[in-house]
Amino acid sequence: MIKIHSLIAVVSMVLLAACSEQATESKPQAKVTEPTPQGWLKEQYLQDAEKIKQAALASNLGYDIIESLTTEVGPRMAGTPNDAKAVAWGVAKLKELGFEKVWTEDAPFPTWVRGEEQASIVAPFPQKLHITALGNSIGTGDIGLRAPIVHFESLEALSKAERADVEGKIVFISAKMEPHKDGRGYGQVVGGRSRGAVEAAKLGAAAIMIRSVGTDSDRFAHTGNMRYEEGVPKIPAAAMSNPDADMIIRQLKRGSDVIVDMKLTSHAGPDYVSQNVIGEIVGSEKPGEIVLIGAHLDSWDLGTGALDDGAGIGITVAAAKTIMELGLKPKRTIRVVMFANEEQGLWGGRAYAKAHADELKDHIVGVESDFGAGYIYRWDYNASEEAMPTVAQIAGALASLDIELGKHGTGSGPDLIPAYQMGMNSARLNQNGYDYFHYHHTANDTLDKVDPESLRQNVAAYAVFAYLSAQMDGRFVEFTGPRN
Amino acid sequence: MIKIHSLIAVVSMVLLAACSEQATESKPQAKVTEPTPQGWLKEQYLQDAEKIKQAALASNLGYDIIESLTTEVGPRMAGTPNDAKAVAWGVAKLKELGFEKVWTEDAPFPTWVRGEEQASIVAPFPQKLHITALGNSIGTGDIGLRAPIVHFESLEALSKAERADVEGKIVFISAKMEPHKDGRGYGQVVGGRSRGAVEAAKLGAAAIMIRSVGTDSDRFAHTGNMRYEEGVPKIPAAAMSNPDADMIIRQLKRGSDVIVDMKLTSHAGPDYVSQNVIGEIVGSEKPGEIVLIGAHLDSWDLGTGALDDGAGIGITVAAAKTIMELGLKPKRTIRVVMFANEEQGLWGGRAYAKAHADELKDHIVGVESDFGAGYIYRWDYNASEEAMPTVAQIAGALASLDIELGKHGTGSGPDLIPAYQMGMNSARLNQNGYDYFHYHHTANDTLDKVDPESLRQNVAAYAVFAYLSAQMDGRFVEFTGPRN
Repeated sequence: MIKIHSLIAVVSMVLLAACSEQATESKPQAKVTEPTPQGWLKEQYLQDAEKIKQAALASNLGYDIIESLTTEVGPRMAGTPNDAKAVAWGVAKLKELGFEKVWTEDAPFPTWVRGEEQASIVAPFPQKLHITALGNSIGTGDIGLRAPIVHFESLEALSKAERADVEGKIVFISAKMEPHKDGRGYGQVVGGRSRGAVEAAKLGAAAIMIRSVGTDSDRFAHTGNMRYEEGVPKIPAAAMSNPDADMIIRQLKRGSDVIVDMKLTSHAGPDYVSQNVIGEIVGSEKPGEIVLIGAHLDSWDLGTGALDDGAGIGITVAAAKTIMELGLKPKRTIRVVMFANEEQGLWGGRAYAKAHADELKDHIVGVESDFGAGYIYRWDYNASEEAMPTVAQIAGALASLDIELGKHGTGSGPDLIPAYQMGMNSARLNQNGYDYFHYHHTANDTLDKVDPESLRQNVAAYAVFAYLSAQMDGRFVEFTGPRN
Repeated sequence: MIKIHSLIAVVSMVLLAACSEQATESKPQAKVTEPTPQGWLKEQYLQDAEKIKQAALASNLGYDIIESLTTEVGPRMAGTPNDAKAVAWGVAKLKELGFEKVWTEDAPFPTWVRGEEQASIVAPFPQKLHITALGNSIGTGDIGLRAPIVHFESLEALSKAERADVEGKIVFISAKMEPHKDGRGYGQVVGGRSRGAVEAAKLGAAAIMIRSVGTDSDRFAHTGNMRYEEGVPKIPAAAMSNPDADMIIRQLKRGSDVIVDMKLTSHAGPDYVSQNVIGEIVGSEKPGEIVLIGAHLDSWDLGTGALDDGAGIGITVAAAKTIMELGLKPKRTIRVVMFANEEQGLWGGRAYAKAHADELKDHIVGVESDFGAGYIYRWDYNASEEAMPTVAQIAGALASLDIELGKHGTGSGPDLIPAYQMGMNSARLNQNGYDYFHYHHTANDTLDKVDPESLRQNVAAYAVFAYLSAQMDGRFVEFTGPRN
């Protein structure tokens, strides 16, 4: 980790209302007598950033892009006919908006077919359950299966269970996701979705049905990917809505076995080659140095993928367009990437990292928008000591959008993980995701959930950040090769 | 309408914070020099009412009853196997709670079978639609139908349309229900649901698909009953979720025909005889005089009928039980009625009115709870001049539950309409229904939507109101026979 203490005094002074808690707390230690280093951004570029911000806040383009994608394509699950439609839409949209270079790059992956999905309690009190198959799950066979429920409150509890209690049963994990602005509740329960089937199968379970990873209390099941493990039997895996999970718990409390019928006809499909869609504003002075902003073009099939990740597509495309529209000529290349198949395993991100391996050292920064349409409240970054005055300049520009400077030392959005692991620098523009997981991966992820107002703030933030990253003389950090 | 002006001064003084707007406005006209008439309620009964209120507010019984009904029976559409289960549940629950008399009365009706329901846009941009058949609708046939959408913003606009614009098409009415505390938005749009098919069929439409009558923006279609008219062809009728209606409008804006596939296999079923379930606390002095509190036991099939009308069942049963539990002996009989099949045409209410026609003159008052679990904010009543001081006494008791005295001259809840039309006196305990139509008639009407806190206030209000109505010496109004 790069030492930044000696510069904190400077940063603190510049940031004003935008300072992070860390910076504020460190203030007393600062040596206020040091000379103020110059940031790498000329005043002109900061003035440009102000214009960009104003233009973005006055435009509905981000929303219009999401409207177009969700209306004209709709759901776009990887490997389905709508995957190809989305790619065609992406290419056409970038060309229509006047991007200088627009192209696609192959992203191959295995596919998965959802099929039918239904379940019901058959005893003691018959009730229909609202479920959905988890991505990658095998099916139950056309006849389905009938088995008693065995209830665990967490994946950990399941992993400590006795085989005799689990064998032949349908494992039900009831851990409920709590809503938080930063979405941290997700990590606390998503293990049940991704690894639950493996743990259950190790103990001989017939299937697994988890409480959805979602913060709502609506009758929607949340899908999402799950994994199998070599050498462990594959069992069918589904998620039920929160009210249905509550129902099972209430029936279990009455003391007798809760017997469930479950039918999934999901199965693996053929391999498929989708495409990452890429558009560029080619840099006027350093075309080989890249500022990457992106999002994923695929979605799950249940909703129309408005929040996940139509919003990210709208935000990043509109951000680049805002810069173009003002006639500004960024020194570095601003590259917008619409990644293929994020949902089923970061396949677009992997393909990108592989195809651009040699170029990652010249990616000044990569930022992904994949957390819905909530307003951005904090910028997390990686920066060397030398770059900190410039970080302060950018933070100053973002402060007027109510974005505070966050912490040094950040990872990346999901599609950029493969590139990040290969050494690419990253940043995060953190959004308020308090209600993101109400809708995430459900049929209810539709355009009406996108708030046009906070979306404009996102577009402004991405545009300002991309432009200033393209204009600054130095780099946030030097490339040091693959991360451990 | 009974004249009450001369008593308003008295009422105004007694009511304090509980006065209605009407009463307050009339204050200046009052003759304050008149002697204060005595209310018919002895101080002892008002003290009992306070005890009842405290007991109800400390009890979870109302919620537990809804929990039991929704968990052990679940959806209970009229004429389905769950209808009979609900009746058995109701009888058992009333007996278990110690009602002195528990019986059932037949309620016959024709049935309706939902069957399958699916629809999708096939052009210009294929998208799945979330729809549900409207109750009483015929089906499309197994093959379904395919037709272009013709869009009207209201039932009125449809009724003025030209045959050439409608013939052979699927009529889409897009009027959206607005949320209000008193639910008045319902009446403004529900005509499209109940009468839309008739208006559309008169112009040769192939089918009708309305925007759901609901105030949410979730991917749930709201069902509800519709009617056909003698001599007008029957066409299939469905409702789509609000986000799906928005989708159709967005596609229509793009200028080309929006073609929809629609398949309903709904159809009429055989006649069925369900039962009204009735329990009584028999009056100690005037057993032949009845205070009726009730709700409907049936629900639609999509959700578990927690709000509609499990809540009403929980509220009214728990209210009566609260009185019993305290060892109080009401002078008049308090009768709890769980009505059969409200949803498909007030069949339980009709059967009740018919079976009790001779007794309606001795129904002191009938009140129904059928508006979810929101808190009660106002009591609307019918009262003679002589009864007004007693109205003021009851209003005083309700005021501590934050219930204000509303207007004189009120109708009744839906199940009591047939009895009301035959002259029965009624009252209303008006609930805040601002979010009631978010969930109304959807799969999302589940127990988690019931707020235990406001439910306790409801139970307290019904218990206090029923008890005081049973104890007062006189009557709210004299029976004057059938209403026009």
